[in-house]
Amino acid sequence: MQTVRVALAERAYPIHIGAGLLERADLLVPLLPQRRVALVTNHTVAPLYLDRIARALDAAGVASVRVVVPDGEAHKDWSTLNKVFDALLENRCDRKTAIVALGGGVIGDLAGFAAATYQRGVPFVQVPTTLLAQVDSSVGGKTAINHPLGKNMIGAFHQPLAVLADMDTLATLPPAELRAGLAEVIKHSAIRDAAFFDWLEANLDALLRLDRNALAYAVKRSVEIKAAVVAVDERETGLRALLNFGHTFGHAIETASGYGNWLHGEAVGAGMVMAGRFSARLGRIPAAAAERLARAVDKLGLPIAPPRIEVPTWLELMGRDKKNVDGRITLILLEELGRAVVAKDAPVRELEAFLASA
Amino acid sequence: MQTVRVALAERAYPIHIGAGLLERADLLVPLLPQRRVALVTNHTVAPLYLDRIARALDAAGVASVRVVVPDGEAHKDWSTLNKVFDALLENRCDRKTAIVALGGGVIGDLAGFAAATYQRGVPFVQVPTTLLAQVDSSVGGKTAINHPLGKNMIGAFHQPLAVLADMDTLATLPPAELRAGLAEVIKHSAIRDAAFFDWLEANLDALLRLDRNALAYAVKRSVEIKAAVVAVDERETGLRALLNFGHTFGHAIETASGYGNWLHGEAVGAGMVMAGRFSARLGRIPAAAAERLARAVDKLGLPIAPPRIEVPTWLELMGRDKKNVDGRITLILLEELGRAVVAKDAPVRELEAFLASA
Repeated sequence: MQTVRVALAERAYPIHIGAGLLERADLLVPLLPQRRVALVTNHTVAPLYLDRIARALDAAGVASVRVVVPDGEAHKDWSTLNKVFDALLENRCDRKTAIVALGGGVIGDLAGFAAATYQRGVPFVQVPTTLLAQVDSSVGGKTAINHPLGKNMIGAFHQPLAVLADMDTLATLPPAELRAGLAEVIKHSAIRDAAFFDWLEANLDALLRLDRNALAYAVKRSVEIKAAVVAVDERETGLRALLNFGHTFGHAIETASGYGNWLHGEAVGAGMVMAGRFSARLGRIPAAAAERLARAVDKLGLPIAPPRIEVPTWLELMGRDKKNVDGRITLILLEELGRAVVAKDAPVRELEAFLASA
Repeated sequence: MQTVRVALAERAYPIHIGAGLLERADLLVPLLPQRRVALVTNHTVAPLYLDRIARALDAAGVASVRVVVPDGEAHKDWSTLNKVFDALLENRCDRKTAIVALGGGVIGDLAGFAAATYQRGVPFVQVPTTLLAQVDSSVGGKTAINHPLGKNMIGAFHQPLAVLADMDTLATLPPAELRAGLAEVIKHSAIRDAAFFDWLEANLDALLRLDRNALAYAVKRSVEIKAAVVAVDERETGLRALLNFGHTFGHAIETASGYGNWLHGEAVGAGMVMAGRFSARLGRIPAAAAERLARAVDKLGLPIAPPRIEVPTWLELMGRDKKNVDGRITLILLEELGRAVVAKDAPVRELEAFLASA
């Protein structure tokens, strides 16, 4: 097991990465304010892992309330959130009952937002079971649900007590989910670490066949990059926006095509390629660098082009992005492959021309 | 104008109390991160004050998005909250658009929770137009909506940038709302300031006929007491629970009778009398002190007895209170009139007997 710490003063927490962590109740028990937790998961993950973690907690003297919700991004909404609240209230969970998110990014975001707002905030633990959640969404304290007019529009910052990334859970990961997670790994390398991008290019085959050592390294390095960014800018007032590389285009793709029709990672894959190519179009990076990024995304089996979206729809959807201020579109662009910058006030005419040909 | 400061380090903020404050855009403009705000109010308050504040802001160069929702506690729910989110998104409000709550406690709680969670948190200003909101709910950063299984169960701590308590708005206050506000004023005196309770006993008549000087003093002293408690314990881990005096019984009354059938202040009035009498029953205060409190509540024209509720229902509803931990009921009880304490693990048998005769 390896441990990366997120350095956030009184909200600092450990991210444990390793095998067999679902059974390691000893990593959680000292952090819990009460010998009772609410395990929130979905119908896909529950049969695989819910008993395993509940039994380990039970053996350590911690009782579990089990809350199982439907699977999928389409259910990351108020209706599902309310089902979680119903279960917490019916089971008399109080302010010291920790909520444990067992699942992928949707479960982490949803259960995390429940933890941020149930009785104005209760303790929270992340047990991410997808690569995407392990390398990205479980780290940094962002929680949210979707609104029909925009993804992740309603949410809160709520840091977990700990993150347990059990590498064993990746063995059951569907190929599409694996690719989605690797897209975020590529993102982390593209924005902050050229050497890691080189390593990824050389190891994508190993990662795609679930090589344990390669995966563990990719998770650890990704988490280190994200933790370092979050430690500097917990509430996304500056640097943290870099983690949105590919997401401005990606969120627009997801919204335009209806939540759940494009996996988040697919949209981010295509979105990163777009952000790279737009950076090249603006002369920030060589076209060759943008195509290197596109090839890596393509090798993952992810789309490198967006679906057909009309330019006004693009601009309308990108205009709703949370990074925007005063009506100007903010984009994350590359200065080189391995270094991203926040570009406030993206040139609209160039963007329109780019989108028209996308 | 008088100003009380809430001392919360980087989240410190001023509470301005005085006449004509709706027009004092100068108090807000320096605090706003953007020359645009969203004014959230209800159908009752809008015709009275919305134009006045919007025009003053407009004259100071600040544009307003107007969001008007239905009036009443029954609408402090997800459905109304979502209407606020719809309006914010449709008007492209971003992370720097401050939300201004113009109204009573329901609007403050609802708009505050919208501000806490819209795009994971935007700036917030309270302009309370009822006595209840001025002396209580606008101060301290608690925001929430109701859940069918419990009042204020879903919420967040989100401190405002400033509070503007315009005494002029109290002139239009319906008598029932005035009484409800005075109940919280009595609460503040009962838990922390015996001399203030004496003053209130002597000045209830003046307060009930809306005497300006008496009201301004009552608001200022109430806000000082609340601000001092909040400064010590922002997130209600200890001392702040004292502000819940009368509310454990009161919330149960509100839930049992259906939101909106008892005004919050009415329920708190009866709840305080119950908490005082239960304190006397346990021998903590003389019966005469409890009756002095009951007489003050009665003089306000508030109920001093609860509606008919079966004991199991009482216990069920009180058992859901957010103060409770590990299934034990926490109550705020009096040690004397002017000093309250947090009593964890209230004696259940005594409580049952008390409720049976309530």
